[in-house]
Amino acid sequence: MQRRLLQTTSSLIRRNRCFYNYSKTHIITPVCLYSTTKSVPLTADTYSKKVQRDPKYKQLDQQDLDYFKSVLPENSMITDEDDLLFFNEDWMRKYRGQSKLVLKPRTTEQVSQILKYCNDNKLAVVPQGGNTGLVGGSNPVFDEIIISLSSLNKIRSFDPVSGILKADAGVILETADQYLAEQGYIFPLDLGAKGSCHIGGNVACNAGGLRLLRYGSLHGSVLGLEAVLPDGTIYNSMHSLRKDNTGYDLKQLFIGSEGTLGIITGVSILCPSRPQAQNVAFLAVSSYEAVQQVFVQARKELQEILSAFEFMDNTSQKLTARHLNLDHPIESGDFPFYVLIETSGSNKDHDDEKLETFLGNAMEEGLVDDGIIAQDEAQIQSLWSWRESIPEASTIGGGVYKYDVSIPLADLYGLVEDVNVRLNEAGIASLEDESKPVLAALGYGHIGDGNLHLNVSVRKYSPEVEQVLEPFVYEWISNKKGSISAEHGLGFQKKNYIGYSKNDIEVKMIKEIKNHYDPNGIMNPYKYV
Amino acid sequence: MQRRLLQTTSSLIRRNRCFYNYSKTHIITPVCLYSTTKSVPLTADTYSKKVQRDPKYKQLDQQDLDYFKSVLPENSMITDEDDLLFFNEDWMRKYRGQSKLVLKPRTTEQVSQILKYCNDNKLAVVPQGGNTGLVGGSNPVFDEIIISLSSLNKIRSFDPVSGILKADAGVILETADQYLAEQGYIFPLDLGAKGSCHIGGNVACNAGGLRLLRYGSLHGSVLGLEAVLPDGTIYNSMHSLRKDNTGYDLKQLFIGSEGTLGIITGVSILCPSRPQAQNVAFLAVSSYEAVQQVFVQARKELQEILSAFEFMDNTSQKLTARHLNLDHPIESGDFPFYVLIETSGSNKDHDDEKLETFLGNAMEEGLVDDGIIAQDEAQIQSLWSWRESIPEASTIGGGVYKYDVSIPLADLYGLVEDVNVRLNEAGIASLEDESKPVLAALGYGHIGDGNLHLNVSVRKYSPEVEQVLEPFVYEWISNKKGSISAEHGLGFQKKNYIGYSKNDIEVKMIKEIKNHYDPNGIMNPYKYV
Repeated sequence: MQRRLLQTTSSLIRRNRCFYNYSKTHIITPVCLYSTTKSVPLTADTYSKKVQRDPKYKQLDQQDLDYFKSVLPENSMITDEDDLLFFNEDWMRKYRGQSKLVLKPRTTEQVSQILKYCNDNKLAVVPQGGNTGLVGGSNPVFDEIIISLSSLNKIRSFDPVSGILKADAGVILETADQYLAEQGYIFPLDLGAKGSCHIGGNVACNAGGLRLLRYGSLHGSVLGLEAVLPDGTIYNSMHSLRKDNTGYDLKQLFIGSEGTLGIITGVSILCPSRPQAQNVAFLAVSSYEAVQQVFVQARKELQEILSAFEFMDNTSQKLTARHLNLDHPIESGDFPFYVLIETSGSNKDHDDEKLETFLGNAMEEGLVDDGIIAQDEAQIQSLWSWRESIPEASTIGGGVYKYDVSIPLADLYGLVEDVNVRLNEAGIASLEDESKPVLAALGYGHIGDGNLHLNVSVRKYSPEVEQVLEPFVYEWISNKKGSISAEHGLGFQKKNYIGYSKNDIEVKMIKEIKNHYDPNGIMNPYKYV
Repeated sequence: MQRRLLQTTSSLIRRNRCFYNYSKTHIITPVCLYSTTKSVPLTADTYSKKVQRDPKYKQLDQQDLDYFKSVLPENSMITDEDDLLFFNEDWMRKYRGQSKLVLKPRTTEQVSQILKYCNDNKLAVVPQGGNTGLVGGSNPVFDEIIISLSSLNKIRSFDPVSGILKADAGVILETADQYLAEQGYIFPLDLGAKGSCHIGGNVACNAGGLRLLRYGSLHGSVLGLEAVLPDGTIYNSMHSLRKDNTGYDLKQLFIGSEGTLGIITGVSILCPSRPQAQNVAFLAVSSYEAVQQVFVQARKELQEILSAFEFMDNTSQKLTARHLNLDHPIESGDFPFYVLIETSGSNKDHDDEKLETFLGNAMEEGLVDDGIIAQDEAQIQSLWSWRESIPEASTIGGGVYKYDVSIPLADLYGLVEDVNVRLNEAGIASLEDESKPVLAALGYGHIGDGNLHLNVSVRKYSPEVEQVLEPFVYEWISNKKGSISAEHGLGFQKKNYIGYSKNDIEVKMIKEIKNHYDPNGIMNPYKYV
């Protein structure tokens, strides 16, 4: 019985986790799956030269299981191997751990009891939210116990005057946003995985997403947190004050800590009023220089209503069209770059006028070659779906190497160009020739945030491809003083590359904080730093 | 020679630090001084029961002076007693320390050398920016060495595409904003003391100010920091990336740390485009309930252009009119509450229409009794001056007890009412009777942020008044789950009251972080926590 229920839950989540099909008739239908690789090799085998199980961690035994059983309600433990697979694997099917146990606490108190026991007994753990991460951060590497927050999923309170929401960490982002929509508010974060990801996971990974341009980072909007420290201490800092200058803002350390300092169990967050008017325009642009100019103009002319500025290169559009088997929204030709602009405001007429004036000017100045404006909500959704389908379209050949980076704007697209040059020089890339391991490198992302998603679309994961890409990509970014992880975090993938974005003193200070809060190192080991 | 130069600098700063006179002809003239108390008693004497000099700190000797002389350029040390006074006293003239030495380093490297020496020799220090704080945080209590950042005051760089400014900590806020204005940008923080306060001090105190409602907190807009740790380590984290998820966001600890963890020497901050249109309305409102309703409506109807929502009570306006010797901007009567609304946007016509529609609706619904809209920049400045004159007007009798607190909106003004009841019950308050020590308690502040400034206007500071106010005020706030310091910080004034806003575990964790970074406790002792 327990297993069936869990499988149902899992497949539901897996379905939610997929992106949706763009259709001319605007009927949204789910499409699966992200990667077509049949079985995922163990992370421990793939990276055996880089990482070994640390013998300081205890192996799970029956006594441990008995203890967890004693503190958790029925159906809160998973030990069946098939059921464990969903939690051991990441959704890109790149990483696979070997955990023998998933725990699903329902209260903060239970999280505290679990962590205290694990800390006392040197049992390593991995906190897991919606398991939608992109750097293997929420999956075990060896036999770490997975603590899933999925059963800690209640909205705690909402204040309609201040717009402050308090909720358990395991609330799904889309659930929170739908709840807020009913109150006339919006969650200040939106991202493709919203149907599966947890708000606690979002905070733990300092998710950026699609509308950071408008609503700012979680470091600004999260007002309070509840977290359990490795020793079981409950750090209750669930404040609901926009301003509070009494002591160091310790909650900030947990924002972006990726489960390495403790487990976030509750979030208090400031939510903006839901915009009453929304527009989306999709534009064709003939050069990356023009993309930048359009951005500078948009920020000036659309200023307070500009809520997203996304760019996509030609390759990303080719793969998306092929993947969705649809014509491109802009049918007049094949352009080097495309831009999606969203506005959100309180007065539709004003916003329409601003957007039309801006687009008129941009076309007159030759910055924009062609474009369409969504005429209704369905078209808005369709254009967004086109943008949001890129990550999935990138895996059309079988897999994808994803790099999520920040680079000063002027240099941003240069990375994609240089990676393509390098792949071609190595003779390993072709969009058509199926004998080549790589299709191409493509770029898209949040120009407004200086955030590029470099996706290297591959037919298979291989060390050969990896050697061409790494450390080249990281060195390139470091030379431009960028960040090797804009929003996806470090996780397992980038643990050894932090030095490309942070100097020795920063890394030393980060390690000291890790050691300060987690002296036994039980929290999400083999990752982060 | 050195002394004269320093005195000039000091008096210049003191003039800048004052608020400006509101005048019907819109001629702005400086008015001095804030407090009329002639000599400020030593903090050490006033609070001798609460605080004693810690003998673990070394007393300054000639050898120390020789060392500092060897690392600093000419004219970078102050030892003359008269000159020291400006740095030893706070601008409200409530606190006075006994430092024998002010150091004015000009480079980060010099700050590092100074701190390393102080740490090795257990010499206590107080970092000082513009010395405009309200809780005695930037003044020594005993003989701590004052490290003034005023000579570390260069703009380092500005990127007109991203809007990212990098500057030394000692740059004056208004200087930074004027520099940005020339580039079409705005500093995301504004406050009354802008003519004197330093951006490094703003960050160290996590200043909130007048436009947090629109541009968010410094935790969101500060992208990078450079700080010197007590042991002299230079933490160079001057990043200029909007998104960077590589490791714990350690710079956040320094935002609001009030000089207790290290000295901020550089700031990298994201600046928004300067609004092209601005409106200010001044409204009369008949009850606090109506103030809240006007706010909810304003947030809905003005949403993306609402940049300030300030409220003021009747007493604050009475004292301001008396102080400025002017008629109130709204001449039609005497109202219980007033509201200043500012809008900032990219299209003047759109903003005018939104504001007029909003005000029309609010008057029709009876929420607003009367109001005026500024017709030009001079009138905008005048209405802001009226609001910004309140702090100074509060000292009309001789002094003021200032409480800067966050309280959930519904309860916010109740604190002012209850304090007035308490003062009247004690028979110590009267606006007219000069034999009473207190004039009245008055309230104003940033409704948009849930931030009340409770000012208790007094004819003299006395233990009798303090006993009526404290811990009553703190207990009241604690009962409503508010913060005893919304934006002014803890400093010396609130060191012992943190427990009213933070629970035991939070306080313990804060103390542990302090000890982690400053094990010798040399940074700004006797304060904060």
